[in-house]
Amino acid sequence: MTDVSTETDQPTPPGLTQRDLDRALAAIAAAIGEDKVATDGEALADFRDPYQFPGSETNLPSGVASPSTVEDVQAIVRLANEHRIPVWPIGRGKNNGYGGAAPQVRGSLMVSFRNMNRVLEINEELGYAIVEPGVSWFDLHDAINAGGHNLAASIVDIGWGGVVSNTLDHGMSYMPYSLDQASHCGFEVVLPSGELLRTGSGAMDSNPAWPLYKRGLGPTSTELFMQSNFGIVTKMGYWLMPKPQIYMPLWLQLWDDSQMPAVVDALRGLMLDGTINMRPQIVNTLCVASMLTARADWYDGSGAMPDSIIDKIAKDLGIGRWMMRFALYGDESVVDHNFAKLKERFESIPTATVTGEKHGPDAWETLPNPGERVQIGVPSMDLYKMAGWSGGDEGGHVDFSPVVPMTSKAVKAAQELFSSMCNDAGFDYIMGMLPINARSAAMVNMIPFNTHDEVQVEAAYAHAKHMVATAGKLGYGEYRAHLSFMDLAADQYGFNDHAQRRFNETIKDTLDPNGIIAPGKSGIWGTRFRRAGFPHQ
Amino acid sequence: MTDVSTETDQPTPPGLTQRDLDRALAAIAAAIGEDKVATDGEALADFRDPYQFPGSETNLPSGVASPSTVEDVQAIVRLANEHRIPVWPIGRGKNNGYGGAAPQVRGSLMVSFRNMNRVLEINEELGYAIVEPGVSWFDLHDAINAGGHNLAASIVDIGWGGVVSNTLDHGMSYMPYSLDQASHCGFEVVLPSGELLRTGSGAMDSNPAWPLYKRGLGPTSTELFMQSNFGIVTKMGYWLMPKPQIYMPLWLQLWDDSQMPAVVDALRGLMLDGTINMRPQIVNTLCVASMLTARADWYDGSGAMPDSIIDKIAKDLGIGRWMMRFALYGDESVVDHNFAKLKERFESIPTATVTGEKHGPDAWETLPNPGERVQIGVPSMDLYKMAGWSGGDEGGHVDFSPVVPMTSKAVKAAQELFSSMCNDAGFDYIMGMLPINARSAAMVNMIPFNTHDEVQVEAAYAHAKHMVATAGKLGYGEYRAHLSFMDLAADQYGFNDHAQRRFNETIKDTLDPNGIIAPGKSGIWGTRFRRAGFPHQ
Repeated sequence: MTDVSTETDQPTPPGLTQRDLDRALAAIAAAIGEDKVATDGEALADFRDPYQFPGSETNLPSGVASPSTVEDVQAIVRLANEHRIPVWPIGRGKNNGYGGAAPQVRGSLMVSFRNMNRVLEINEELGYAIVEPGVSWFDLHDAINAGGHNLAASIVDIGWGGVVSNTLDHGMSYMPYSLDQASHCGFEVVLPSGELLRTGSGAMDSNPAWPLYKRGLGPTSTELFMQSNFGIVTKMGYWLMPKPQIYMPLWLQLWDDSQMPAVVDALRGLMLDGTINMRPQIVNTLCVASMLTARADWYDGSGAMPDSIIDKIAKDLGIGRWMMRFALYGDESVVDHNFAKLKERFESIPTATVTGEKHGPDAWETLPNPGERVQIGVPSMDLYKMAGWSGGDEGGHVDFSPVVPMTSKAVKAAQELFSSMCNDAGFDYIMGMLPINARSAAMVNMIPFNTHDEVQVEAAYAHAKHMVATAGKLGYGEYRAHLSFMDLAADQYGFNDHAQRRFNETIKDTLDPNGIIAPGKSGIWGTRFRRAGFPHQ
Repeated sequence: MTDVSTETDQPTPPGLTQRDLDRALAAIAAAIGEDKVATDGEALADFRDPYQFPGSETNLPSGVASPSTVEDVQAIVRLANEHRIPVWPIGRGKNNGYGGAAPQVRGSLMVSFRNMNRVLEINEELGYAIVEPGVSWFDLHDAINAGGHNLAASIVDIGWGGVVSNTLDHGMSYMPYSLDQASHCGFEVVLPSGELLRTGSGAMDSNPAWPLYKRGLGPTSTELFMQSNFGIVTKMGYWLMPKPQIYMPLWLQLWDDSQMPAVVDALRGLMLDGTINMRPQIVNTLCVASMLTARADWYDGSGAMPDSIIDKIAKDLGIGRWMMRFALYGDESVVDHNFAKLKERFESIPTATVTGEKHGPDAWETLPNPGERVQIGVPSMDLYKMAGWSGGDEGGHVDFSPVVPMTSKAVKAAQELFSSMCNDAGFDYIMGMLPINARSAAMVNMIPFNTHDEVQVEAAYAHAKHMVATAGKLGYGEYRAHLSFMDLAADQYGFNDHAQRRFNETIKDTLDPNGIIAPGKSGIWGTRFRRAGFPHQ
């Protein structure tokens, strides 16, 4: 461990002196190994929000512990309780657009899982993997390929993220099992007491159904540990799909902006009847353009980009006003039937076209378009470009992601609200819609800014918060919230005088009486922090 | 309310005198209405296990409250706390084979939902219903038909059961959404404090995604209220499927008993790749025979029926040694492709045959075979016959339902164990296997007996308990447990010195400090009951 006494401005957690903190970190280092605890600037550089105005961050960690075993995690949690130091678990250390890999409370100890990145088992016959919390999408893909398994994993756009951390945050991948975010089966959890719990069928010793059946006997606690601070997940079952005979990536382009709600109605019907059985991604012109170009290539005015420029981008880049990336999987004759059916349905909408090509398994790893590789489980970093839209290398974004019903009426109303709010606030309307299932979708609004422009940064955060509060009053809830307005987003869930918050706080205080696990996660604070005046937002 | 002073042998809950009980019931009657509380024998006749030896039951209720509103339920719960009277919620009042509609604790007040049986909403566009906890499968089917909706509900074999109560008990229906028991979306729950909680997106006022998106922001508590005694569910979202173009019920017959594991391997493959996307029912000869005939028609010996007689039944009734009921749903050309594929795959197994016919929506309501109607959501009572196998009108059964991996190896090993245990105990091996998903299945062992033969009843319960304990040591957990051995079944979930039980007890004591909601459900008892020596089993 770096000698913490040489640090002059180390952030300390609320209620702890520098000496308390030193003792806590020393005790943890003594328990799990000096080499697994670091407090130097280089080690901590990864655990801050890269999209904040430089120097403005207050939620800096005091150190990072990198356990390599479940016993290490248990030791960290027990000592964190003893020393009252908050810990903030992080899988692979990203979460960009939602506050980054930073803790909510200044001075927290990061618990980084980069050294717990083993794929513990892959079962080809039953189609599952059991993974540690530091396994990245790349790691999982590599393990499947290394074993020569006839399986594919549903993954996200950017391969460096963590399988467990993304799952725990209700993150959305694209293949069939990802609908309703239902790919996981069974957790192992270190409770705030340090005790080990296995959920579902894992609650029975030697039960082979742990990664096969999501429940056991009695109430199931699995979902209680997602977007949660009730425990730290140390193992997870993840279902893998047998490779289909045919994978057919598809692209829908729509040139008339006003027809987008009609696409939603068609899509709902095709998802409800099972023709489309995966998660499409429906993005507007600026969302695609932000992956390929910079804003300054098109426009240097302030305020939201005029519609005429968006039209020009749509044409010049050949994008259209909306683009939907989606796919079919299955036996060739079924894929052919479904393709003909969906093409006819979508192309009955004025200005919509659908194209795509069929591929057998040999072609998937090397498809030229990374968006087409993603939908069959081949990860890359090629889609990590959006942040540069405003500000290039200094660009950033905050995301606002409410859930809406999958009807043309609901999507039209939501778009009118969100786009007019963006226009009023002077921000481009960059939207990507991800169906959660056939019935509901998250509308991810990305608000881009130059992180080195303090006024723009402040305006972006203020705009995002205004959207959260305005949308909340109308019954739109966020599926995932940015650290900077997690409390505000949770505040919108106000049924019966915030019954859910009171319920969560009751569980929190029971399981974690010192409130040391991820205080503030999803707006849940233990009594100790509430008494100390949190949340501060 | 019937005057309780006229009852001479009314069961009283532990720790309460007859006078305490009278006061509690009077207070509840005063709060919700005299006509909604009953204590007479006729009213209570439905709330006992019909398959116990007459007169042997100890777990008799003291009364039944039949709320008609959520406010009634809240009043009952608040007064039950005040008076320390345990309450046992029951949807439609069945649960046969798992202990019936009886409470676990003698003297409990039944909370019957027969008067809360409204289908509150059916949304055809988005495919869901919101139902009260007393809605039966018949009620839901009738409401869909009355509204002329192009929707079908996944239902169970016997139509008199409750949609909510079956869902809460991890009950298994048959259509595509039923896989993983995933048809529900969003609960309204009366907590033990009397407070109202809505789970998932329902935690936000006016959020239309309550029946559309299973989660909200932060941890999801929905599954915590299933097979649980942490609250009483008063509303539930239930997904409905658009009617497919074609429904094709299918039957597989297998004449060589030893080939059954091969059917499991074929089925897993066809479910994993999506060819079969629903819940088949795989039953042995005696399971089918028990629906159609009585044991005495074939054999009057004691002990398990000899294999030669089973073979004769298989042939005489034209059943085969195993029969699988399953179905395809979808566009005709896809159904045709999938039928040809699965027929070829299954018929590669010696002695297996697959047959079936396609039907359009006009035919479904009047298909002659009730088993074929069930799989497309048309309920009946025609399949309620199995209980008469041993003892005719006096017949009963206890069910033992462990979960096993969907592999030939695992199913073969489990069958060898369970069938030899049945043979050794002198009971017929009556088995129905229900896949939970493509990866795991519940093997429902029905142990039949004559309820009027005290020796046989005792032997059946002893045999079932022996199976639970023996199977538990080998890692087989029950998906659903009989009241009479719920504690034993829960006891098998022993990972980390019963970490799950301790977790459940912690949550129970926090949410329900007086332990009044369904004490003993899934082996979960509040501290008050544990101190009083429960469980007694």
